[in-house]
Amino acid sequence: MSRQPVVTPRGDDFPRWYQDVIAKAELAENGPVRGSMVIRPAGYALWERMQGEVDARIKAAGAQNAYFPLLIPESYLRREAEHVEGFSPELAVVTIGGGKQLEEPLVVRPTSETVIGEYMAKWVQSYRDLPLLLNQWANVLRWELRPRLFLRTTEFLWQEGHTAHATEEDARAYARRILHEVYEDFMVGVLGIPVTAGRKTARERFAGATSTYTLEAMMGDGKALQMGTSHELGQNFAKAFGIEYSSVRGTREHAWTTSWGSTTRMIGGMVMVHGDDGGLRVPPLLAPTQVLVCVVKDGDGVHDAARRLVEEIERAGVRVALDTRTDTPFGRRAVDAELKGFPLRIEIGPRDLGEGRVVLVRRLDGSKTPTPIDAVTDRVTEMLSADQRGLYEAAREHRDARTVEVKTLDEAVEVAATGWARVPWAAVGTAGETRLNAQGLTVRCLVRADGGVPDSEDEPDLVALVARAY
Amino acid sequence: MSRQPVVTPRGDDFPRWYQDVIAKAELAENGPVRGSMVIRPAGYALWERMQGEVDARIKAAGAQNAYFPLLIPESYLRREAEHVEGFSPELAVVTIGGGKQLEEPLVVRPTSETVIGEYMAKWVQSYRDLPLLLNQWANVLRWELRPRLFLRTTEFLWQEGHTAHATEEDARAYARRILHEVYEDFMVGVLGIPVTAGRKTARERFAGATSTYTLEAMMGDGKALQMGTSHELGQNFAKAFGIEYSSVRGTREHAWTTSWGSTTRMIGGMVMVHGDDGGLRVPPLLAPTQVLVCVVKDGDGVHDAARRLVEEIERAGVRVALDTRTDTPFGRRAVDAELKGFPLRIEIGPRDLGEGRVVLVRRLDGSKTPTPIDAVTDRVTEMLSADQRGLYEAAREHRDARTVEVKTLDEAVEVAATGWARVPWAAVGTAGETRLNAQGLTVRCLVRADGGVPDSEDEPDLVALVARAY
Repeated sequence: MSRQPVVTPRGDDFPRWYQDVIAKAELAENGPVRGSMVIRPAGYALWERMQGEVDARIKAAGAQNAYFPLLIPESYLRREAEHVEGFSPELAVVTIGGGKQLEEPLVVRPTSETVIGEYMAKWVQSYRDLPLLLNQWANVLRWELRPRLFLRTTEFLWQEGHTAHATEEDARAYARRILHEVYEDFMVGVLGIPVTAGRKTARERFAGATSTYTLEAMMGDGKALQMGTSHELGQNFAKAFGIEYSSVRGTREHAWTTSWGSTTRMIGGMVMVHGDDGGLRVPPLLAPTQVLVCVVKDGDGVHDAARRLVEEIERAGVRVALDTRTDTPFGRRAVDAELKGFPLRIEIGPRDLGEGRVVLVRRLDGSKTPTPIDAVTDRVTEMLSADQRGLYEAAREHRDARTVEVKTLDEAVEVAATGWARVPWAAVGTAGETRLNAQGLTVRCLVRADGGVPDSEDEPDLVALVARAY
Repeated sequence: MSRQPVVTPRGDDFPRWYQDVIAKAELAENGPVRGSMVIRPAGYALWERMQGEVDARIKAAGAQNAYFPLLIPESYLRREAEHVEGFSPELAVVTIGGGKQLEEPLVVRPTSETVIGEYMAKWVQSYRDLPLLLNQWANVLRWELRPRLFLRTTEFLWQEGHTAHATEEDARAYARRILHEVYEDFMVGVLGIPVTAGRKTARERFAGATSTYTLEAMMGDGKALQMGTSHELGQNFAKAFGIEYSSVRGTREHAWTTSWGSTTRMIGGMVMVHGDDGGLRVPPLLAPTQVLVCVVKDGDGVHDAARRLVEEIERAGVRVALDTRTDTPFGRRAVDAELKGFPLRIEIGPRDLGEGRVVLVRRLDGSKTPTPIDAVTDRVTEMLSADQRGLYEAAREHRDARTVEVKTLDEAVEVAATGWARVPWAAVGTAGETRLNAQGLTVRCLVRADGGVPDSEDEPDLVALVARAY
């Protein structure tokens, strides 16, 4: 039975498919101001789950949450030369407060290195105060001329970590710990997204950083998305803001700082990695609702059986919801459940129930499994766990199939039209990067031949990952 | 043994005591911009606990979280006449974005009724879409000329609920459900703060509301603090933003909306209700750390025993931390633990341990209870639960002792110099309110003689609660 597609087919027009899915799954819509975004309950529920998972990992890495002001004196930004240069074109500026013209304009934070640097300088006195490990969940603003929901919006939600350490080695180790133990672990383990950890080239570094580490993921159209970054800031901010400590030997030293962030952009990444022509496919470990129990049709004992099933599944620690809207045609509800990407749907109707069973429908592949009602909970937990792996494996196969090892810049340009090129960094270099940029391509990151993350872009035998990017 | 007070005694100078406690307990400090605030980890941990508790109750009341933009076109605010009049003097305005002067200035949200109204109008079409129950956790800005940490800051964190209903009765019932089932339940049950639920007079209502319900608490100095409010907005915003639905009978109707909020101000309230000359006293159910296990002094097996104790207490579901900093004098650590208000401290040292016991020190009253080590976990859970009640009872007795029933406005003025006056609303009225305001007093709320919350200020026999307020 063919039916009208509910969203633009992904293969026909990927950007339009993305827009359709975001709209039809009711994740978000454009805000009233260009570049702004309204995150609807279904989208925000995903963010809450992401927050919970990332926050637990941040706390396990020893950082504490705090909150710093939204408005930053413009003069703070000017203290670190590269930082102000990087952010100036994107700033929103408050010039009127309480009905009066302000003496000093206030910047709406594009990121909080400067204001947090100011306070770290007060709080850090001695080596005993280090490391100082802070994190903040907040909104930030970066004026965006070509907005796209979740991927590039003028306002977005994120966490930003800011830490100060006694030595460069400590700072580096912590920036990398966050990259791997917080971000990579979450993205691979919960989002089911294979990510490539690497080092940004000098050109692609965060404004004011000495090293930027990144996690790059391949989207369904072969483009790359930067999923999270962790920066070593050297002593740049410590010098600009006076973050000094007295060492064990009694000397005064500048601290070494890091910063690291992950944003609502991850929602867009999750959509573009796992989504298909039916809409969203949400990885079970992330899904706010893992199982939707649908009453297909009213009938003897159906509603009671559905409620009992929900209770039983819930007791097994599974997040489950109940759909009893039998006044809406079942077909429409099934399409809607697919759009919204619930990992598992359980269809319960009078006929099947009469035979003691229900039907389990997996969002991963649409397969339908008639299941005796007393075996449902076991099957549910097995399927959720198998489908979490299934989504990850599919994404990994897709990425590997569209990644090609090449030798020259020309080959890299060709490959990157549809996927990722891995090319020797020696064959690219700064001049090569300029050529790539002119064609809408970037070096997403540098990696060692063995997959490790380089300490410097001058290491021998590095591989550059070249791709189009969001 | 007498010692130097670590904070200004509460009875000497309450405002200064408050400032000292906030600073010494490292809850917050002033931000770089006048009126702004940096919430430090110890303060933010309290907020995270409050968020968790309030959020769970909001979800239980059926509302869903969402997120709306920070920047609102100035024209939105002008659509509801009373609303713009109320908020205009407090606005922060962005006039520059992305390096350019903006055509229309953008207001940093002081509250989100207007932008949420705009989207509700899109999402509500039919009676089937109602009620629409939304909540947002966010930062808001209201320019503040006399800032005080947590109590009045230019930027603060809050949740703001916004709902649309088919009828006035539904809207009223929901606004009151939030007042009682979310706010009052949380404040009484978790914060351990007795609150008085009542109705604001027309003069004290939220800008644009038809009814404002409030929860008022008495601080340690006898002043009142508004802890949370819930508003009926009538059809004011529905008419201003076109929130219309087709009814069951097919007619077009304007929805009835509500809004309700609670903020980081609750942290200040908790400090001012429960704090004493030693610093904070955090109610056990709120405390991020309920029990601090302190190694008094190094010695045979002390650290091992402390760790085992921590594990055992943790297994009982208690939030516990370990202090092993034996290189810092114990007295200083004990004072610090008092300042920070951990409900229970367990002192473990070589001598006591040799006799198989430890000492439990209750923050509520400073009492010390030597306890056999194998009975600790049971005593801990008993004490935490008793001290939660103890803090509530002490606050209730304090409030009741400083609340006086009077007959006339003059008596009310006299009583309100040091506490709360309950006076017949008929003896106050609008003219009386003007007189009170001239003396720095306000009608905090109107209540029925039986303690109920009035539907209107015209009900007979209402009692006005008159007090100084933060």
